[in-house]
Amino acid sequence: MRSPVRQPFPIALLTDFGYRDHYAGVMKGVIAGIAPGATLIDLTHGIPPQSVTAGAIALRESWRYFPRGTVFVAVVDPGVGTDRRPLAIETLAGCRLVGPDNGLLFPAADQAGIARIVELTAPRYRLRHLSSTFHGRDIFAPAAAYLWKGTRIDSLGPRVDKLATLHLERPVESDREISGTVMYIDGYGNLVTNIDRAGIDRLSARFSGRRLWVKILRVTPLPITNTYGEAPKGAPLATFGSFELLEVAIRDGSAAKRFAAQPGTPVKVRVS
Amino acid sequence: MRSPVRQPFPIALLTDFGYRDHYAGVMKGVIAGIAPGATLIDLTHGIPPQSVTAGAIALRESWRYFPRGTVFVAVVDPGVGTDRRPLAIETLAGCRLVGPDNGLLFPAADQAGIARIVELTAPRYRLRHLSSTFHGRDIFAPAAAYLWKGTRIDSLGPRVDKLATLHLERPVESDREISGTVMYIDGYGNLVTNIDRAGIDRLSARFSGRRLWVKILRVTPLPITNTYGEAPKGAPLATFGSFELLEVAIRDGSAAKRFAAQPGTPVKVRVS
Amino acid sequence: MRSPVRQPFPIALLTDFGYRDHYAGVMKGVIAGIAPGATLIDLTHGIPPQSVTAGAIALRESWRYFPRGTVFVAVVDPGVGTDRRPLAIETLAGCRLVGPDNGLLFPAADQAGIARIVELTAPRYRLRHLSSTFHGRDIFAPAAAYLWKGTRIDSLGPRVDKLATLHLERPVESDREISGTVMYIDGYGNLVTNIDRAGIDRLSARFSGRRLWVKILRVTPLPITNTYGEAPKGAPLATFGSFELLEVAIRDGSAAKRFAAQPGTPVKVRVS
Repeated sequence: MRSPVRQPFPIALLTDFGYRDHYAGVMKGVIAGIAPGATLIDLTHGIPPQSVTAGAIALRESWRYFPRGTVFVAVVDPGVGTDRRPLAIETLAGCRLVGPDNGLLFPAADQAGIARIVELTAPRYRLRHLSSTFHGRDIFAPAAAYLWKGTRIDSLGPRVDKLATLHLERPVESDREISGTVMYIDGYGNLVTNIDRAGIDRLSARFSGRRLWVKILRVTPLPITNTYGEAPKGAPLATFGSFELLEVAIRDGSAAKRFAAQPGTPVKVRVS
Repeated sequence: MRSPVRQPFPIALLTDFGYRDHYAGVMKGVIAGIAPGATLIDLTHGIPPQSVTAGAIALRESWRYFPRGTVFVAVVDPGVGTDRRPLAIETLAGCRLVGPDNGLLFPAADQAGIARIVELTAPRYRLRHLSSTFHGRDIFAPAAAYLWKGTRIDSLGPRVDKLATLHLERPVESDREISGTVMYIDGYGNLVTNIDRAGIDRLSARFSGRRLWVKILRVTPLPITNTYGEAPKGAPLATFGSFELLEVAIRDGSAAKRFAAQPGTPVKVRVS
Repeated sequence: MRSPVRQPFPIALLTDFGYRDHYAGVMKGVIAGIAPGATLIDLTHGIPPQSVTAGAIALRESWRYFPRGTVFVAVVDPGVGTDRRPLAIETLAGCRLVGPDNGLLFPAADQAGIARIVELTAPRYRLRHLSSTFHGRDIFAPAAAYLWKGTRIDSLGPRVDKLATLHLERPVESDREISGTVMYIDGYGNLVTNIDRAGIDRLSARFSGRRLWVKILRVTPLPITNTYGEAPKGAPLATFGSFELLEVAIRDGSAAKRFAAQPGTPVKVRVS
C-alpha cells in the first residue's frame, strides 16, 4: 500500500456546527477519504449558530498563525442551498480559504491579500450526491481536501472577480476621544472592541502624560492595564487581549454577564 | 527510530463523554501509544449522556462518509462493567466498529452489512489494569488501535453470532398520509424525523400535482421547501436536511425551543 | 519538498479556552507551523475558566495513558503576563510538561518524577511578537513544538530549581472512618472524591466482613458497588470511577445537580 501524501501544512476547520452532532466529524471523514495524509485541525466549531460576523472575525484573527499553504474550510452558512456561491480563494500570503460567499471569508481574505477566487462548480471535485442543506460535507470539504493534495485552484471552477464583502465597523477618532464598539464576545465573556493599539497610541501622543480612560455602559471609567492579573479578583479591567484589540474583562469572571453587553455596545476611550 | 506505520484510513471516535473532562483525550492517548501513526478524528463527544439511541443514529449517519477501512470506536455505555459484551465488528462495506453491545453499533452495522463479530476478551489487546467503569480507555481504545494497525479481528476474541439490536421506529404510510415521529434533535434545534424522501415520493406519486403539508404539534401546516434559506427569518419550515430525512426547522432559530418537541413527537405528512 | 519529521508520540493540549473561540485552534496552528508532522491531541479545552486545580487534576489523571515522550502543553493561566514563570519540565517517566508555574503542572510532574525544569525565556523559541495575554500561543505552543521536534530542553531557557506546588487535600483516616472531600466534578455530574482504593482496603481489613457505607450531605448512606449499572435508574451509588477514586454518582443522572455538591463537600466512609 502506498503511503499517503503528506504536506507541511494542515487543513483547518471553522464552523458553527457545534459539538453535539456528527456534522463536523463527517466533514473530516470526507477529507480523510480524499487526503488521508492531511493533518486536520479543528479551529473551532463553536461559532454561535448563523453568526457570519463572529465566524469572519475568528477566521481573520487566526489565519496568520498557521503555516503557509494551510487550507481553511469555513462554514457558517445560513443561505446554504440558495444562490450564494461556494468559493475557494488563494491569497498572496499563501493560505487558501474555502467556504460560502456570504462575507465569512472576506476579512481574512482582505488581510491576506486576494490572488485568485474560483466558484466551486466542477462536479469532479464534489461529492457525487449533492444535498441542498449540507455543502460543508458535499462541496467545501472535498474542495479543501483536493487543494491540500495539490489540485490547482482553477480546476475547481471558473474564476470569480469579487467576493461578498463584510465590513466590520471601524472606530471614530476625534481629538480627545476614540468612539468604538464591542465587536466580539469570547467564551470567557471578554468584550473585544474594534479599537486597536495604533488608535490609542495616536490619542496618547496628542496628550502625552495624560491618562486614558475606557468607558462602557455605566461602568466606572477603567484605566488600561497590561495584564488581566493587574486587577483584583472580580474587578473589571481594560487591556489589549489575544486579538491585539482593546477588551473589557472581569478578572477571573465574565464581563458579558456582569454588564449585559452585546456586539455593538458603544465603548469610548477618553483623555482624563 | 522507525517511522510509525501509516494507513490511508483514520480512527474515528464517538462518545457521550462531553468536552469538559479528559476522558475522550485519554482514549486518544491510549490509541496514540499503540498506533502512533493513526489519524484520529473526533466524530463527536457530544452525544447526550447515556443516549444510546442518539449515538446510534449519529454513527449510522456518519460511517459512509469515511474512507474504507476506517475504525469507529463508539462509547455510549450506561451498562459499563455489567455483563453487556464489548464487541468489534467487521462490515461488508469495509468499516470496523468497536463498542459495547447495547444497540449503539446496530443501525450502522446493519446498514454496512455485518461480516464478522467478536467479543473483546483477549487480555493481550486490552490495557493491563481493567477498570469496571472506563472500558472506553481499557478495552475499546486498544481494540480500535490494534485493528487499525492490522491485527486480525479474530485475535481480539471469540466469534459472536448476533449483536443486540436497536430498532428505530419506522413511519407508517397510509393512502393519504405518512405518520412519523421526531427521531433526533440536533444542536441547531432542528427536528429530524424518521420520514425519508422515498416515502414522500410515493405519496406525491399517488396524488400528482397536489401539494403536501407537514403537520407537527399545533404549528400551521408547513410546505416542504428545498433549503433553509427559502423561509423568512424566524419562520418555521420543513426540508430534507443533512440526514436526507424530513426535518422541521426554524430559519436562523431553534425549532426544538420554539415548539418544545421531543424525540417521539408525532409528525405527519398529508395531501392538502 | 521534504516530508515533515514524525515522532511516535503526540503533542497533547489541555486548556480552559473552551470550544467557542479560535484560541485553542490558534495554538494548534502555531504548533503545525513549527512541527508539521506532529499528531495533535485535544486532551480537553473544557477545564472550567481559571480553575487551576481542575486542570491540574485532569492532567495528573491523563499523562500516564499517553506514550513515552508525549509533550503536554497545559494552559489554565489567570496570571498570564504577571511574573509567574513559563516552564517546561522533563520527567523521569518520559513525558514533558509545558505551561505556567502556577501549580497546574505540579501534581502530574510530582507523579511522573521531575528530572529537569527550565524557564521559557529563549527568544528564539517563542513567537517574535509577545502579547501579555496569550502566552499559550506566543510561548507555550512554540516550546511544545520545539521539544517535540527534538530541541534540547536546556536550549529553551535557564534551569529552575523548584516549581510552584499545588497540594490536593488528602483524606484523613481514623480507626473506623475515612474522612475525605469531593475533589472534582465531571461532566456527567459524578462527584469524584480524594479517597482511593488503598484507604478503603485498609479500613476493610480492620473490620473484615463488615460492610462500608459512604456518607455525603443528607443522602442515605450508600454501599460501594462495582459498576454504575448495579444501581437502579435514577438512584445514587458509590463506586470506583475512571480516576480509580471513590465517586458518588446517579445512575443515568447527575449527582452534582441532585445533591448540589461542590469541590470541598465532605464525604465519609464508615463501618456499618
